[in-house]
Amino acid sequence: KGCLGYVKRVLFVVGDDWIFLFALGVIMALISFTIDFTVNKMLIAHWWLFQELGDNMLLKFLSWTVYPIALTAFSTGFAQSVCPESAGSGVPEVKTILTGVVLEEYLTIKNFGAKVVGMTCTLAAGSPIFLGKVGPFVHLSCMIAAYLGRMRASATNEYENKNKQYEMLVAGAAVAVSSCFGAPVSGVLFSVEVVSSHFAVRHYWRGFFAATCGACMFRLLAVFNSEQETILALFKTSFDIDFPFDLPEMIFFLVLGAVCGVMSCAYLFCQRWLLGYIRRNSVIVKLMAMEKAVYSGLVALLLSSITFPYGLGQFMASRLTMKELLYSLFDNNTWIVLTQNASLSRPHVVDPENLWLEWWDPTFTVYGTIAFFLVMKFWMLVLATTMPMPAGYFMPVFLYGAAIGRLFGEVVAYFFPNGIWTDGVLNLIIPGGYAVAGAAAFSGAVTHTLSTALLALEMTGQLSHILPVLLSVLVANAIAQRYQPSFYDGTIIVKKLPYIPRFWGSQKGSCMVTTDPYMNRNLAPVVKSWGFRDILNVLTSSADTEFPVVESEGSMVLLGSVARSELLYFLHSYTGQDTVVEGTPSSGLEKNVGEVCSIQPITFQLSTQTSLYQAHELFEILNAQLMFVTDGGKLVGSVTRKELRKAIEDLALGKTPV
Amino acid sequence: KGCLGYVKRVLFVVGDDWIFLFALGVIMALISFTIDFTVNKMLIAHWWLFQELGDNMLLKFLSWTVYPIALTAFSTGFAQSVCPESAGSGVPEVKTILTGVVLEEYLTIKNFGAKVVGMTCTLAAGSPIFLGKVGPFVHLSCMIAAYLGRMRASATNEYENKNKQYEMLVAGAAVAVSSCFGAPVSGVLFSVEVVSSHFAVRHYWRGFFAATCGACMFRLLAVFNSEQETILALFKTSFDIDFPFDLPEMIFFLVLGAVCGVMSCAYLFCQRWLLGYIRRNSVIVKLMAMEKAVYSGLVALLLSSITFPYGLGQFMASRLTMKELLYSLFDNNTWIVLTQNASLSRPHVVDPENLWLEWWDPTFTVYGTIAFFLVMKFWMLVLATTMPMPAGYFMPVFLYGAAIGRLFGEVVAYFFPNGIWTDGVLNLIIPGGYAVAGAAAFSGAVTHTLSTALLALEMTGQLSHILPVLLSVLVANAIAQRYQPSFYDGTIIVKKLPYIPRFWGSQKGSCMVTTDPYMNRNLAPVVKSWGFRDILNVLTSSADTEFPVVESEGSMVLLGSVARSELLYFLHSYTGQDTVVEGTPSSGLEKNVGEVCSIQPITFQLSTQTSLYQAHELFEILNAQLMFVTDGGKLVGSVTRKELRKAIEDLALGKTPV
Repeated sequence: KGCLGYVKRVLFVVGDDWIFLFALGVIMALISFTIDFTVNKMLIAHWWLFQELGDNMLLKFLSWTVYPIALTAFSTGFAQSVCPESAGSGVPEVKTILTGVVLEEYLTIKNFGAKVVGMTCTLAAGSPIFLGKVGPFVHLSCMIAAYLGRMRASATNEYENKNKQYEMLVAGAAVAVSSCFGAPVSGVLFSVEVVSSHFAVRHYWRGFFAATCGACMFRLLAVFNSEQETILALFKTSFDIDFPFDLPEMIFFLVLGAVCGVMSCAYLFCQRWLLGYIRRNSVIVKLMAMEKAVYSGLVALLLSSITFPYGLGQFMASRLTMKELLYSLFDNNTWIVLTQNASLSRPHVVDPENLWLEWWDPTFTVYGTIAFFLVMKFWMLVLATTMPMPAGYFMPVFLYGAAIGRLFGEVVAYFFPNGIWTDGVLNLIIPGGYAVAGAAAFSGAVTHTLSTALLALEMTGQLSHILPVLLSVLVANAIAQRYQPSFYDGTIIVKKLPYIPRFWGSQKGSCMVTTDPYMNRNLAPVVKSWGFRDILNVLTSSADTEFPVVESEGSMVLLGSVARSELLYFLHSYTGQDTVVEGTPSSGLEKNVGEVCSIQPITFQLSTQTSLYQAHELFEILNAQLMFVTDGGKLVGSVTRKELRKAIEDLALGKTPV
Repeated sequence: KGCLGYVKRVLFVVGDDWIFLFALGVIMALISFTIDFTVNKMLIAHWWLFQELGDNMLLKFLSWTVYPIALTAFSTGFAQSVCPESAGSGVPEVKTILTGVVLEEYLTIKNFGAKVVGMTCTLAAGSPIFLGKVGPFVHLSCMIAAYLGRMRASATNEYENKNKQYEMLVAGAAVAVSSCFGAPVSGVLFSVEVVSSHFAVRHYWRGFFAATCGACMFRLLAVFNSEQETILALFKTSFDIDFPFDLPEMIFFLVLGAVCGVMSCAYLFCQRWLLGYIRRNSVIVKLMAMEKAVYSGLVALLLSSITFPYGLGQFMASRLTMKELLYSLFDNNTWIVLTQNASLSRPHVVDPENLWLEWWDPTFTVYGTIAFFLVMKFWMLVLATTMPMPAGYFMPVFLYGAAIGRLFGEVVAYFFPNGIWTDGVLNLIIPGGYAVAGAAAFSGAVTHTLSTALLALEMTGQLSHILPVLLSVLVANAIAQRYQPSFYDGTIIVKKLPYIPRFWGSQKGSCMVTTDPYMNRNLAPVVKSWGFRDILNVLTSSADTEFPVVESEGSMVLLGSVARSELLYFLHSYTGQDTVVEGTPSSGLEKNVGEVCSIQPITFQLSTQTSLYQAHELFEILNAQLMFVTDGGKLVGSVTRKELRKAIEDLALGKTPV
């Protein structure tokens, strides 16, 4: 027993939370694998049904459309009835929670259940609906992380502070991305970029450790399930690593990045516009208020009708699942070369060895089908994101980018059929490399992240294209970040969650604007010596949750802050005393706020000379919600995220806040 | 001209500093390439001399030893005479500068010159001295970044604030690592982990952009110099990507990580001990005081004598350069298999196609030579780091780790000559994969970073081993971080630079300890209404650089702080007034501190209830140097990094600070 105690002591000394991080990784990998397994079986069942119906087109059409309609309607209905907050990707909410805002209902067990069931159904609806897994999975992982965090707090007899909770949540987000794609390093980086604005290097290892556990477990399960012989990349490519690309091709990759950047701006604009539109349009609002499942069903009907493989679907490779689509786009071969050399015919069922044949059409050629795919999926994807059910939007965007890249690569290969001639050596163009770069650039631009570059490479298991991919991602991001808020920020704006906009380098004025013009001067300060009557007055006249405590009304020297709940408690205790101890009313009256309530000391305060830039920095670093403004020790105002946001937006519009 | 103005406006709007980041990347790549080019020529010259001397052993020995002795002595002498601060790697100093401490002499142009010349000579001394390039290069890059930052500030008419400077320096560090290894992503991550403790995700792109520019340029130069046909990884490996490793091998990688962790603890301990010893030993101290170049020369004599290729050097592959050593260790083949199959003889000159032959000895076998290499290089490396000249210590550590991994891998291959049998498939062990993992794990453990995992993979251009490498690095780090400060922190401790120790998960007490027991109570507060005489008293009685300003001596309400220089200016202005305007002495006397000096408002303050954990967090996040402690608005004490450090160390030793 002494030995066991020693082991336990050593384990806890190294870092008392590694056990919980390990558990987090393993649990998330198990969930991820189970969902994948279930979804896979359901997709096979759908395909089997579709095949078995023979040549009856009507039956085939019905089987093609009814399955996704039923699943999305169920997903929406279930999610909405169990927990309406489980709809959507959940990443914007996680991001908001990590800025310090408390959103209780987003980390409950009810939400977890709704999300798991809803997401599985959404994914099982397959490629006609064209939605993904990452977003909800990040949300799920954060719920598990929050739960484990509470468990740890009770196990180690330590009170759970905000910092520790924060660390766990960031690690949770990292695990989610890692165990979705089996990509540990980029999983950590992507989650950090998406959900947090500041990062302590000290806590790096948490994310890496949990992510490695998750990725290992996820890939191990794939091996035990005999999908793979050993641990390999998820979408393994096999480009020529001796000569992956020629130097002049760097320019094409730059152009590809610019194309992806512009496309992402268009996508983000349309997506935000439509999200706003369905909240304004009276018909849709009525429909949504009555029965959200019907709306989802209608959208699913439209989407699946268009992708019917014997109709328009044949021009957009709709027989492939999401995974197969990505596999086919990352294909090692140059399709334009393949179409010239062989006498082709599209097989009756999908041929796993030649997935690219699904993209080939005798009249339209591959260019026609990919272009058609891009045009149609653009509005279909925008439409799909409006369905109020648990669904991820990263994978479709990634796939869409891969299609842009593939088209671009094939065009380059068309113009340089023998590759580019340098130094007397001929090297063929590899369009698959462009597909990887396009996927990274478009998804990076939409989410405003750079780590998609590494993610794409980790998913394909090849590093050879790292520099061109990074270039594309940087260019695409420069364009997208300049003109549009990210996908997640856009959702936060539409959902009216608390949010602080980004700063631009151009906003030089930010160093000139002080807190003075925009701070809130309507304060309700509590004087330390106040008794029952004054507190009652303050509480009835103001709805604030936190009140500044000052020395006296004359000096206004800031002493600390007191929570509304404390003041309410003070009122209760007072009335209690007054009635019970009737003999000593004077002593009851003498008690004041300073004696009864616990006054929180002020650690940060802004001064009237603090610049907007600094104030913004502080709110971001410290995840603060409210700061008091003092001038020479005297309380003069307060700044919350609301005021800060308004000041930044005014500055961006060129108005100097007055 | 309007068009040009428009372009300029657009370019500056996107982010006014991207031009400077681009310049930074390109300049550093050019410097890196030039140094590499020069060093390469010098190494070839040395080798040519060595070859030309025929069979005269004495002459050969002299040519082998004199060259490195001369170079290291010159490097030391030059660096010490031009700028003594240029000695060493420079990374600890950069780290200290980034915590907000001003170390003027470390970012001067003199230091730059000394560092470039010194580093080139050190590198040209070659593999006998066994030192690297990364550390000084990070320092160089930060100097260029600081210079460009000042240029930007003057170009955009913006005053340069601390934040912007910080951003530039972090980007500088990222560029350095990237353009050394041509590894953009891990360059950014490694530099963030090494030099900063907190990171704003908003500034991520700066590092990535500059690093990508640097890496592109560096690899482009290699292509133009006809070293490579296209942009490829620096130490490209070609492991079997269809089956890189078998599942049970994960356990071996774990063990390898543990071995590297233990070895790194031993290394760090010895290194720190020796650094301290040469500062205590009277003989060495005398020698160092007189002539540092002689000390370096003596050490170089010892090191090069031992590595003489016809002496002990033949058992430690000393004919290979640093690059060739790394290439050979990352070799795709299993040496133990190669030695069994062929009749071997070591070639007269190094065979670039079969570098591994240098590791082979008929009597000792490859195990003997690698083990001998490990034993000898251990103390030689520790000794080499004591030489007071510009030199990097990352590359040798990385190489040492690769040797550990290679030995481990060869041993595994010996015990499983036919690979490991799973699922009826036989797969051979690839010792090169262990070498990559070993390099990442050992260097990661020594520097306390995790991103060496990605660095090793980016350097070899293959991602297939990502999970085992991450596992090894995590295990090695867990051990090293537990028992030893990192290489850089160790140097900071020995050099007595300001430094805050890390926190351990086990130090739960940190949440209980308040500022009260350890804060400095000996304050010299300045009262707002004070005049000449009082200020003179304060200035003569205290040596502080910053003074708190209070309302009155009775209330002690903290109003702000005032710098020593301001107070001195106040005194000067007073005496000036007093002597010139003799007619109005009373008006001169009436002026007080509050009217004349600019009082800086207080943004952060600690309270007496702030826990040590929180205080530590704040100092790290905000790069603060001094914080005042207040109790209900009243000034009661102050905390600097010194007090904080003492409190943390006391807590680690189990003493609760009283």
